[in-house]
Amino acid sequence: MGTSRRQEILDAALEMFAERGYRGTSLDAIAERVGLTRQGVLHYFPSKKKLLAAVLELRDEASREALTADRPVGEWPVQLAEVVAYDRANAGLAQVYSVLVAESVTEGHPAQEYFRDYYERVRARTVRRLAAQYGDRLPSGLSPEAVATALVAMIDGMQQQWLLDRERAGHPEIMRDVLSVLLGTAPR
Amino acid sequence: MGTSRRQEILDAALEMFAERGYRGTSLDAIAERVGLTRQGVLHYFPSKKKLLAAVLELRDEASREALTADRPVGEWPVQLAEVVAYDRANAGLAQVYSVLVAESVTEGHPAQEYFRDYYERVRARTVRRLAAQYGDRLPSGLSPEAVATALVAMIDGMQQQWLLDRERAGHPEIMRDVLSVLLGTAPR
Repeated sequence: MGTSRRQEILDAALEMFAERGYRGTSLDAIAERVGLTRQGVLHYFPSKKKLLAAVLELRDEASREALTADRPVGEWPVQLAEVVAYDRANAGLAQVYSVLVAESVTEGHPAQEYFRDYYERVRARTVRRLAAQYGDRLPSGLSPEAVATALVAMIDGMQQQWLLDRERAGHPEIMRDVLSVLLGTAPR
Repeated sequence: MGTSRRQEILDAALEMFAERGYRGTSLDAIAERVGLTRQGVLHYFPSKKKLLAAVLELRDEASREALTADRPVGEWPVQLAEVVAYDRANAGLAQVYSVLVAESVTEGHPAQEYFRDYYERVRARTVRRLAAQYGDRLPSGLSPEAVATALVAMIDGMQQQWLLDRERAGHPEIMRDVLSVLLGTAPR
């Protein structure tokens, strides 16, 4: 049952990082939650940093699944609305991401490089695909760089608003409509 | 010298909350940084929660100063670009805000209500002003609610991107251009 024990530790770490951040969570506390000793946890993950890396990977896989392959730019508004809806249905992953990315800006945080690379990669890919379709200017008049920056910012910022007020609905539709306007493909 | 000692404690708390979050910072650690005993700190701030409230107020005042009074909606793009530029020049305040708001979504966090109210207030005020000027639909075709949600999200999300990569410039101009398009006041 090695695999399921590993998964249990991973689930507990995700939960606790989401609740108290990476720095606020000790290996001992994770061990206690899954009913192991610290040594027992270290058998599966040789350090707290390795456990963090595994949690980040988990999140990456989940969001890759949602952001399926390369669809035409014209379909992005609908696709992004689906990504937002997916995040709303997976509040645990959304929260651990939100807490860790904010914590990662602090000095010497082990996830800082991961997130810097992640943002850089997502932004660069978005810019490339927009430029390939539209050149320097989208139909909206905006540059690919401006739309990529705004799009990534909206995903994060809308998630933050929702985590604070989970009763609030309508974010997927707002994402769809706003992105259509940013691209300039929506009729006015 | 009571006032300046109080200010010193406040500055240290802001710095440490930005570095390690509210939960990761103890009163003892703050006391140590300013060369006081825990009792000495408690003389100025009767609890860690009160200290948090004072830090949040500080941030509120600073951003109120930047977001000066009620300017016409048409001037918002330029005004928001100024707010973004202000945040970039005050990285400490920006970081403490970013770290605390993300931490606040975790269970039982003392700043949760503060941030929920803050977002609700800013969003509602923005919706009201947009609706007063344009009714149900802006020239872009978007609703006041969609633009308000996207605007607040962009401020937070772009700040997050910048905190991770402080070499990156151009955010104020992106905010200005994107907001013009969201309002629908920019020529295409």
